[in-house]
Amino acid sequence: MPNYLVINGTVTEEEKAVISVLDHGFLYGDGLFTTIRVEAGRPLWFDDHWQRLCQQATVMHMPIPWEKKEVLNWLLAGLKANGLVDAYVRVTVSRGQGPLGLDFSQCKLPNCIVYSKPLPAHIEERQKMGIKAGILSGRHWGKLWPGAGLKSLNFLNQVLAFPEMNSKGWQEGVYLTSTDHVAEGTVSNIFWFKDGILFTPSLETGILNGIMRQKVIEMARMQGITIQAGLYYQEALLQADEIFITNSISEIVPIVELNGQSIGKGVRGDLVQRLLLELKNFKKNC
Amino acid sequence: MPNYLVINGTVTEEEKAVISVLDHGFLYGDGLFTTIRVEAGRPLWFDDHWQRLCQQATVMHMPIPWEKKEVLNWLLAGLKANGLVDAYVRVTVSRGQGPLGLDFSQCKLPNCIVYSKPLPAHIEERQKMGIKAGILSGRHWGKLWPGAGLKSLNFLNQVLAFPEMNSKGWQEGVYLTSTDHVAEGTVSNIFWFKDGILFTPSLETGILNGIMRQKVIEMARMQGITIQAGLYYQEALLQADEIFITNSISEIVPIVELNGQSIGKGVRGDLVQRLLLELKNFKKNC
Repeated sequence: MPNYLVINGTVTEEEKAVISVLDHGFLYGDGLFTTIRVEAGRPLWFDDHWQRLCQQATVMHMPIPWEKKEVLNWLLAGLKANGLVDAYVRVTVSRGQGPLGLDFSQCKLPNCIVYSKPLPAHIEERQKMGIKAGILSGRHWGKLWPGAGLKSLNFLNQVLAFPEMNSKGWQEGVYLTSTDHVAEGTVSNIFWFKDGILFTPSLETGILNGIMRQKVIEMARMQGITIQAGLYYQEALLQADEIFITNSISEIVPIVELNGQSIGKGVRGDLVQRLLLELKNFKKNC
Repeated sequence: MPNYLVINGTVTEEEKAVISVLDHGFLYGDGLFTTIRVEAGRPLWFDDHWQRLCQQATVMHMPIPWEKKEVLNWLLAGLKANGLVDAYVRVTVSRGQGPLGLDFSQCKLPNCIVYSKPLPAHIEERQKMGIKAGILSGRHWGKLWPGAGLKSLNFLNQVLAFPEMNSKGWQEGVYLTSTDHVAEGTVSNIFWFKDGILFTPSLETGILNGIMRQKVIEMARMQGITIQAGLYYQEALLQADEIFITNSISEIVPIVELNGQSIGKGVRGDLVQRLLLELKNFKKNC
């Protein structure tokens, strides 16, 4: 059975889904995306994803011509076409077609592409067993560049990190900033527990304000856990009791080994387990 | 008359020129490009452009499946279809189609797109009268990120610089690095003369090794001009006798005003004029 995408509301076979080579999304990586987890037909925190996409589009001077409900309907149409009830969904918004050059004022109409596919099979195992990760040799592009914190189509840094992760047997790589502070993973935010306190890099580092990051902070607060978002060096990670990463698809995944060194007891810790349990309740109301 | 592009050797009407939305060039800005000036049907320094593209593709683990001559023929076919003898040409090579995700090992075949259009009308006037430029508020993404120096499809920094340039009446914006050193323009390298010496940021800053940058250095050496490539602060620019930018399309363009301050006498200087004259001879043998 072919897989289907939804392009500007039109359900299209994946193999026939095309875009102009003059779309600035292709020419310059000039666009945004977000990835959404779907459970039992329900896109989790769709409103948050949509709101962040619209906020970031404003930063990029890219007026979004669609209503939230419209795009949600496209998402649901894609799920239906693919016969999916649990899914990984990527919503991409690109600048649209225009003449070559940095001046995007003649790009009149953004394009919206909604992809959906089954959730990766390895998520539950990773949530339970944890993953190996390490500090990447390449650095985070930094808070001073205007695209900092945007979930944009400029993802080459992450693409080029993949061979390093792969060769070292890491399932995720973690960037430091140019000032040696812990930033984020290639496709995740990072958290760690030390003496019962939950630490995470602050947005000041230039990282993405991940939806799952926001939800974990919210959950931790509800549980009375003290949270400190700040500027931390990698030593803090290596001395942590428990480390985990977050993203909207994999939700919460423990890191049990960092740079070849066991974290805590080298297995999923109790505090991460507690957050994963709490998440199940938390999702009921999302 | 429609404009034509050449996609993997097939001449295609611009309006019908499309690419898969699953091309990693679109999904992640995972691709490269180069821009080539064509004069009287002759692509200038095509070999240098091709060689750099192939070198950068190697850095990206992206095997190029075409011969140089093949792509040159595509370029010439595009010029013919568009009836152009003088032209701006962009050769784009994208990773190709593959499953979502950072792992590009299943992207089997890159795509090559050759665009051509007339040279911008304003080049000669700018070469003569100079342009206004300024230091951008956003910083260069830095030498520590793995994509540093690649002419990749990750061009969002430059896209986001455009509104600033536009609002300030600048025709070019110049980045500083995170360590405050002069780096490069949004679409150019930068040079300046002070007391007869030619200065330019070194590649160590993470800038593109522009083809025209290389040619200007070569020409200056032939003329016995002392060249210093290094790490410089913006004060060096503001105290320069003459400043100019280089790129393969506009070649050599003087900056006569920087951050609202006149440079030298506020008109094109003698040394830049000499380089422009010399370039005419130099191009005969390229």
